[in-house]
Amino acid sequence: MIQENKNQSSFGMIGLGTMGSNLLQNIADHGYNCSGYDNDPKKVDTLNNLSRNDIHAYSDLKAFVENLKSPKTVMMLVPAGKIVDAVIGELLEVLDKGDIIIDGGNSHFTDTERRFADLEKKGYHFVGMGVSGGEEGARKGPSMMPGGDKNAYETIKPVLEKIAAHVNGEPTVAYMGERSAGHFVKMVHNGIEYALMQLISETYEVMKKGLQMDDKEIYEVFKKWNDGRLKSYLIEITRDIFAYKKKGEDHLFFNDIKDEAKAKGTGKWTSQAAMDLTVPVPIIDIAVSMRDLSKYKDLRTKASQMYPDPKEIKFTDKKGEYIAQLEEAFYFAMVSAYAQGMHLLYSANEEFKYDLNLDLIAKIWRGGCIIRSEFLEDIYAAYKKDSKLKHLFLDDSVHKNLLKSISGIRTVVSDAALHGIAVPAFAVALSYFDNFRNEEMPANLIQAQRDFFGSHTYELRGKEGVFHTDWEDGGN
Amino acid sequence: MIQENKNQSSFGMIGLGTMGSNLLQNIADHGYNCSGYDNDPKKVDTLNNLSRNDIHAYSDLKAFVENLKSPKTVMMLVPAGKIVDAVIGELLEVLDKGDIIIDGGNSHFTDTERRFADLEKKGYHFVGMGVSGGEEGARKGPSMMPGGDKNAYETIKPVLEKIAAHVNGEPTVAYMGERSAGHFVKMVHNGIEYALMQLISETYEVMKKGLQMDDKEIYEVFKKWNDGRLKSYLIEITRDIFAYKKKGEDHLFFNDIKDEAKAKGTGKWTSQAAMDLTVPVPIIDIAVSMRDLSKYKDLRTKASQMYPDPKEIKFTDKKGEYIAQLEEAFYFAMVSAYAQGMHLLYSANEEFKYDLNLDLIAKIWRGGCIIRSEFLEDIYAAYKKDSKLKHLFLDDSVHKNLLKSISGIRTVVSDAALHGIAVPAFAVALSYFDNFRNEEMPANLIQAQRDFFGSHTYELRGKEGVFHTDWEDGGN
Repeated sequence: MIQENKNQSSFGMIGLGTMGSNLLQNIADHGYNCSGYDNDPKKVDTLNNLSRNDIHAYSDLKAFVENLKSPKTVMMLVPAGKIVDAVIGELLEVLDKGDIIIDGGNSHFTDTERRFADLEKKGYHFVGMGVSGGEEGARKGPSMMPGGDKNAYETIKPVLEKIAAHVNGEPTVAYMGERSAGHFVKMVHNGIEYALMQLISETYEVMKKGLQMDDKEIYEVFKKWNDGRLKSYLIEITRDIFAYKKKGEDHLFFNDIKDEAKAKGTGKWTSQAAMDLTVPVPIIDIAVSMRDLSKYKDLRTKASQMYPDPKEIKFTDKKGEYIAQLEEAFYFAMVSAYAQGMHLLYSANEEFKYDLNLDLIAKIWRGGCIIRSEFLEDIYAAYKKDSKLKHLFLDDSVHKNLLKSISGIRTVVSDAALHGIAVPAFAVALSYFDNFRNEEMPANLIQAQRDFFGSHTYELRGKEGVFHTDWEDGGN
Repeated sequence: MIQENKNQSSFGMIGLGTMGSNLLQNIADHGYNCSGYDNDPKKVDTLNNLSRNDIHAYSDLKAFVENLKSPKTVMMLVPAGKIVDAVIGELLEVLDKGDIIIDGGNSHFTDTERRFADLEKKGYHFVGMGVSGGEEGARKGPSMMPGGDKNAYETIKPVLEKIAAHVNGEPTVAYMGERSAGHFVKMVHNGIEYALMQLISETYEVMKKGLQMDDKEIYEVFKKWNDGRLKSYLIEITRDIFAYKKKGEDHLFFNDIKDEAKAKGTGKWTSQAAMDLTVPVPIIDIAVSMRDLSKYKDLRTKASQMYPDPKEIKFTDKKGEYIAQLEEAFYFAMVSAYAQGMHLLYSANEEFKYDLNLDLIAKIWRGGCIIRSEFLEDIYAAYKKDSKLKHLFLDDSVHKNLLKSISGIRTVVSDAALHGIAVPAFAVALSYFDNFRNEEMPANLIQAQRDFFGSHTYELRGKEGVFHTDWEDGGN
């Protein structure tokens, strides 16, 4: 029997990088004694040097665990992959059955699925939890997407609800669903994040090259947009980036940054998982592939010399008026990005039996996380009205707003194509829409081709069954 | 010591579906005694009922193997996945070390990688070989992409060179490279195939809806194209599909086929592998996701009622003149599809050390396979001139031809956007190009955002190192 001790901690964190350290301080701020562990003594010292009597950091795992109240609650915030398995392995040596292990990192959902099954069998409670909001969110209020052991969630719920961000007084955390549901939802969150960031970068490209606006004018646009229906965390920080100059410098700092976008892989995972589930998420796909293309700077530089711009790259002289169409285009494509993500969640839920509630997901994304936005209120409303809504485009209110924005995206995609400005995410947002509303896609031709060269068979309209034709016989 | 017997077979085939049966007949036609095995007695009977004295089919694996000359050569043409492992398991019971096992199916390259290592350790010679050309190709001359055990390839080379298609007297088969190289190359072949089929279907969509041409007019266009620089197997069969009517019917048969495109997964594999290798192949990605979108017929039907076409969906009344621009657009996008595939092969070769020869790959793709085309002569020429060419867009001759076709694709993408016709593959082909020739992508903004919310750091132009800024401090 472990002795209760008033100095014992209620919550333990493994991995004291900025995210782990910030989240732990956030928890302590809400009245919980906390413990931290890291195998890097520097990180342990940094946390102990805060001299908070409600936080104790350890570089010895056994001492760390011994100071936790039972049932012990340990969250990991360590790099995804093999390290998570290694830490779990070490934890099993020192924890007791019935203790709670939370993986708060960006683990791939298939890893979480495997770990959940394994730990359940061994008698431990495992929660795979996506955490979004970056460093600041961790410190002041993140959005959290826990899934897995429902009873364990009930135990930790009071803590999580206190440390989460709050929207209209309600915390941005909720139990997502069975097994790996939490990490799946977080993965899709990140996929949408990739898509939105790509769209913002293309908006910038249009303003800079197509409308030939200067940085100050572009700042004003993002500022204005963030006061309207596009209000969102990502537009807000873009506005701030367009105001950020280093001391003594008169140009925007981000212009000094290399135009090669890195990625940690969650966008890629989203695209790959969507392809496995046969759900189209082309805006996410193109966001991933354009980050990849940015890496090939040497090829791009060479090609830029071989393939000049069209004669006229400027779209129009009426840039003020054009901005209204660009806003429509962005709104339209943004809706499409969220819609593709929600569609993926809908289908994953069917396939994996997660027991997701799409309204709840939209609800907790409204605050704390990177993709929080005014528009998430609309998504929340749509799924609250119809929790079985198959696609956001079919919601009445979204429908009404999209209709008013279509002409903007048609104009921008058309002009960009003619003037040599790359807007791949806008273009696929529009094409996806035009095929989504296409009752007769030319996919029958593809089926005919497949049957022609590979006898892959086809189905017929209005007739059950699967058929094959010997196309070489020339017909009649 | 196994007794030599004149009636013994030189070549054994496991899996007597149409592909396996056709390939075996092709081999026998070239003077080799052949044996076939299938666990389905019907397929065995079908082959034996041909009453060829150079082909014997068995439903008993042991009997099948015993009738093969040593070292025994056995090719599998069975569905990819667990069945391949199961068949290999059974084969190891009856084969001897030093025998040759060929996997001629569409196995995932990572499976081939694993099987190659496993069989090499056990003393068997394993060849993972992609086979393209469909049923007709298998019977009359496929394109074959063997990789793995080089010595085994040398042994089977005479057979393969005889049964392959021939272009200018040269066989469309060659040793591709180490380990899983053969299946990787075949996967990319199929990825390009998906892209080309999607592009053809979009061309049809433009002609049908944007130019409001009838089937006969569209037939004439594909017929004309197949007599010019677009000459290719896929354009050829599309032309034939546009001539195919069932007896007694006066409409084209493919119009009866459901507009839901199926897929066996090799396109998806290509996109997923490309994302893992951080190589952008967005035309393949969109081809995969548009096949997926076609599945959602019920959503599309509903959305078609909610979201009407733009007022004018017709591009122009001058359809004859417009066809020339559409041909340019198709040419441009087709080049881009091949270029993305070749870029993926280039990068995979760097990463996996396959020892690929891109010129050889282009050479054997010129005949027998589904993506064979006139343009592959240009690709072959480009890589023959410079086997280390990093990207097809950088080749002088390709460059010259692309420059002449850009205006066509700009026009088509622009018109399609305005008139509500979905041409996603054309659009990404153009956007990919416009970013490929973009010396300054807006990816620096993405890096600034990532550093802002997640401290993911960034690199600077002209300065070594990795940096982080506290963007919240507001700068100066």
